Parts: sequence; structure tokens; C-alpha cells
Amino acid sequence: MAASSSSSALSAVSVIRSDVDRELSSFCASHRGLLLEIGEELAPAMDSLEAMVSGGKRLRPTFAYWGWRGAGGAAGDERMVRAAASLEFLQACALVHDDVIDNSDTRRGAPATHKRMAKLHADQGWGGDSEEFGQGAAILIGDLCLAWSDEMYQASGFPPQTLQGGRPPFDAMRTEVMAGQYLDTLEQVRGTATREAALRVMRYKAAKYTVERPLHLGAALAGRGEELAGAYTDYGIPLGIAFQLRDDVLGVFGDPSTTGKPAGDDLREGKRTLIVAETLSRSGAADAERFLSLLGTPDLSVESVEWMCGLIESSGALAACESMVSEYAERAVAALDSPELDESARGPLGDLVVAATRRSH
Amino acid sequence: MAASSSSSALSAVSVIRSDVDRELSSFCASHRGLLLEIGEELAPAMDSLEAMVSGGKRLRPTFAYWGWRGAGGAAGDERMVRAAASLEFLQACALVHDDVIDNSDTRRGAPATHKRMAKLHADQGWGGDSEEFGQGAAILIGDLCLAWSDEMYQASGFPPQTLQGGRPPFDAMRTEVMAGQYLDTLEQVRGTATREAALRVMRYKAAKYTVERPLHLGAALAGRGEELAGAYTDYGIPLGIAFQLRDDVLGVFGDPSTTGKPAGDDLREGKRTLIVAETLSRSGAADAERFLSLLGTPDLSVESVEWMCGLIESSGALAACESMVSEYAERAVAALDSPELDESARGPLGDLVVAATRRSH
Repeated sequence: MAASSSSSALSAVSVIRSDVDRELSSFCASHRGLLLEIGEELAPAMDSLEAMVSGGKRLRPTFAYWGWRGAGGAAGDERMVRAAASLEFLQACALVHDDVIDNSDTRRGAPATHKRMAKLHADQGWGGDSEEFGQGAAILIGDLCLAWSDEMYQASGFPPQTLQGGRPPFDAMRTEVMAGQYLDTLEQVRGTATREAALRVMRYKAAKYTVERPLHLGAALAGRGEELAGAYTDYGIPLGIAFQLRDDVLGVFGDPSTTGKPAGDDLREGKRTLIVAETLSRSGAADAERFLSLLGTPDLSVESVEWMCGLIESSGALAACESMVSEYAERAVAALDSPELDESARGPLGDLVVAATRRSH
Repeated sequence: MAASSSSSALSAVSVIRSDVDRELSSFCASHRGLLLEIGEELAPAMDSLEAMVSGGKRLRPTFAYWGWRGAGGAAGDERMVRAAASLEFLQACALVHDDVIDNSDTRRGAPATHKRMAKLHADQGWGGDSEEFGQGAAILIGDLCLAWSDEMYQASGFPPQTLQGGRPPFDAMRTEVMAGQYLDTLEQVRGTATREAALRVMRYKAAKYTVERPLHLGAALAGRGEELAGAYTDYGIPLGIAFQLRDDVLGVFGDPSTTGKPAGDDLREGKRTLIVAETLSRSGAADAERFLSLLGTPDLSVESVEWMCGLIESSGALAACESMVSEYAERAVAALDSPELDESARGPLGDLVVAATRRSH
């Protein structure tokens, strides 16, 4: 199964996108009404919530939808669109809370939710600390997103028995992403940067959460969860790791205009990514020590970022990561040969490998 | 319907308590296994989570259970026990996140979850800031609790169709408590302290969340949600407000050994409770101004707390709140005359009014 061109890759992603956007808007409109009935002062919180939910690449809904199609589910089924869209609320919770935890200022080029709510506090001249208010509000906004995720899933229109069949991947996905995020936080404070630790975080926080579990969910809702579990794992885990590796490379070298983050941002944040682990294990002791001492410095100079990027390249870490991306992408494509997979999904799932691993998103 | 003695009141609460404890322990044991499979380093996070879930008065499960019994549900039904117990995970999320938002040091006399996780960070000598790690870990632990709440509900053993019938109160409860908590935070930073604002927060954060919605959930799971909605609202809203008023009085005057909080704690935190609103509206301008200026001072002296407590009493606010507690409790008891209510639940629901509003918990 050869992966197709970049423009058809885009169409595999976008085929469900406008439907997902529409369902999320409709859910938000009805729930805005509920909140404003409780208190009109909830409007700015709802605005912030909706801003988070209305952006993003819709990767998880896309994989859930093609997981459904690959298991023989009908094209454009509105119930599946809604169940898939519900994953965006989970993702919104993860992002809003991650930004509080990591103290990130921006998300997708705009102020992070806690920053946005802190600005509201400051603009209104309210008492107390604006940053603290912003963090508290963002915690609650993320909680609403998490609660609304399974509310939207359960209200997707599938028969209750079918929804129950989708709960194992749905539930596993939530536990895994939160556990993965905790381990990620732990790796940062422990200051370790091993290949094994980085791969474990990628497995739970990215591969299972972004690709494998959404595929499993789609298959389970189509009533063929067990038959397709193996093929979707064989496709989803390597693709998810390849995708995360691509993201990590972009987080170091990427163009801020496409990633929404300044170049070197991951280095300033001190993320223990695989590319960092590869750099350390491939460098001499002195370089590795200097690299580690700079990693996680919030006000890292442009010169330091350049030196670190230079070491990532000269150590061979960048090339190693690029070849891993290719190798994992090939493994994902190979898994699409599974006879269990419905013919209609082979092309789009192949296209998604291209879309998720190309050099710019 | 006369409310019965204090000892039978205790038995109405405790009849379901050990069953709820057992189901929560069993759920935690299986999910500890899931987490440790992901990474053994998750053990301390799971310990903190379980510590939160293993405490508390089990009020929400108790009301859900008696809501079920009052709608004709069978005594001791294990599915109902599990569905009721799932509300404790929601409550654990609310408490863990509230403590981060309010920056509270203790919960039920023990360190708050974020403090406990900050201590782990400090004890291990990990890098970065212990407080920040603790807050981040507590946000994730609360998220796990929230996800596990509906996971446990959906896995309670009721037929999927029955569970779907319980979703409206289950979903409303989550949205309302988060909205109520946001409004509570907002009242504090806006520095307002009106009776209307305090009553609105009590309505959503306490009355609907603690009493009315759990009752609605139990009735819906028994298939009689619509028939009992009115009676449970008429009983639940006044009882919830009376309960919160009792809690607010204890938060100011209470004995730390029974409330787990130091006396005057709510005054130091600056909570905009109804008792504060009553004090301000019943005091002269100079006293009200001084009271407001002291409210929310973290290092409030013993003398200031004594002066504030004195004003609460001399202004008549304490007596007004006490008479409101009695009046609301009577309204709750009167609602139990509803002919829709199953005879078996009248006594216990009456006992719960006594248990929730007596002068020490």
C-alpha cells in the first residue's frame, strides 16, 4: 500500500473536518445556553472554552472516523461524527490543563486559556492575583471540557448498547493520556533523558491517545472492535510515535508560523523528548553536560538555541530521528495490508501516514 | 413527617456507606493495576487519589441511593451502590481541584493533594519547584477522578438503556458544580457579598450538586425520574441550602476537630458566604467596612477573628442563618409528604435532614 500525494493526504483529514466542526459548534451553542442560565457572568469562560474547541487539526476524530470506516461503518454516519467529535473535548481538556501545568503562555499562536482568563481578571480590575484567577478558571474550563466529552459521546445517537461497546477504548484513552502526562511531568523534574523513558511517554501520551485508541473506538462502534484491534495497534502505535517524533523535530527546528510556537520552544521548556535523549547519548561528555545544563532554561538566548540545534544535527540525533520517522511510517503503512480492514479505508489511512509525518504540518 | 433522632439519622447515612466504600476500593484496586502497568512511578499519584476517595461523608451516594429507594428501587441493589459510589469520584475531582484553585493547605485535617504531591517532590529532591509540581500532579489526579466517575457509572451493571436514562441528572450535576465553582471564585475576586450572589452559588455548588441531582439520578435509574422530579427538587434545594448554611456557620465558628479546618478558616479564605452577606447588610457602615477589609486576609490574627465572629453574632446574622437553617429544613421535611414517594424512603430522607443540618457534623 503506497502512501499517496500530499493533496489527497489533506483530503483524508479534511473529509470529516467540517462535520466535526459543525457538531462541536452545535453542542457548544446548546451548552452555552445552559451556562448562561446559571449565570451570565459565565460567558467569558464559555468563550475561552469554545476558542479551544474550535481550533486544531481534528486528528483524533479523523482516526476514530477512519477506524469506523475500516471496520465497515457507513460513510458520513452522523452518529459517528458526533462520537468522534467528542474526543475533541477530551483533547481541549488535556491542552488547557497541560498549559497550566507547563505554565505555557501560548497555544496555537494565541494566549493559553489561563493567560486569557488572567487578562480578563486584570482588565476588569478584580481583586486578588490575576495569574491565580486565570489558573483556577482554566482548571474549571478544562474540567467542563472533560465532562462534556463523555456527555457528547453518550449523546451521539448510537444505541446505548453500541455506546457501551465503545467504552473500553474510550475509557482507556483517558486514563492513558493522563498517566502519560504525569510521567512526562515526572521525567522533566527528575531530569532524566533516556530513550526508554521518552518512548514510554510517546507511547501513552501520543501513540495510544492520538491514533490507536481512536481507531479502536471507531472499530468498536462498528461492532468489529476485536477483529481489528491487532491491525489498528500495528498501524497506530508506530504512526503515533512517528507523528510525535515529527512534532518534536518541529518543536526544536520548526517554523513558528506553522507550529504556532517559537523555534527552540521545546528546548526552553526542557521537554525530555527522544531527540534530546538521542543527542545526549550520541555526544561527548562535555557537550552532553552543557546541553543538559541549558535544557529547560526559560530565557535561553538565540545563540544557545543555535548551539543546541547544532549539536542535535552534528551528533547524528536529527538524522536518527528522521530515519525513525520513515521507518515507523513504513511499519504503519505495512499494517494496512491486514485482510480485516475494509477496502474503503486503506487509501485514507495511508494518506494519514503522509499527513502526520511530513516535514511541515 | 417528623424528623427522627440523631442516632437513627446516622443509620440512614451509614446504611449504604460500607457498600460504597467497598465498591470504591474495588474500583481503585483494578485501576491501580492499570496505572502501574503504564509505569510503576504512578504509585504515589494513585496513593493520593485513593486517599481522597476513601474519605468523606458519602452524602451524594446516600442521596442517590435514597432517591432510588424513594422511587421504588430495591434495597441494597449492587448496581445502584456502584452508580451512587461513582459520584464520589466526581466529588474527589471537585475537592482536589478546588484545593488547588483556593490554594488550601489541608483537606479533612490532612494535607491537600497538591501539598502531598509537593512534599513527594521535595522529599525526592527532584528538580524545579515543588509547589508547581504538586499543583500539576493534583490537576492530573483530579482529571483521573473525573474520568473514572463516569467510567464507574457506566460500568455499574445497569442495562445501557437504564444508564442512558440517568445521564440527564448525571450530566447536569457536573456542569452545575463546575459553573457554581466558577461563580464562587468570581464572587471572591469581585469582592461583592450580596445575599443573591451567595444564594446562587449555594444553589448550584451545594443544593443541586449535593442533594437534588443525586436524588434525581436515583429516581431516573429506577425508571421514575419524571414522576419524582418535583418532590425531589422541593426537598433537595432547601435541604442543600440548609446544609450549606450549617457548613458555613461551622466554617466560621466550628470546632477544628470535627470540621478538619481551623476556626475562622472561611474568613481567612475570604469566602463570600450568606453569613457574610447577612453580617454586612445588618451592620453599620464603619463595622461593615472593617469586616470587609479583614475578610480574605490570609494571616488574620486571633483577635481579628474574634472581632469578626462577634459582629456576626451581634449584628443578628448568626441568628438569621440559624433560623434559615430551621426554616429550610422544615420545607425539606414537608416535601416528603409527596404521594409519589415510596414509603420506605420517607423515614431515612427525614433522618438525612437531621443529619445534614444539626449543629455538629
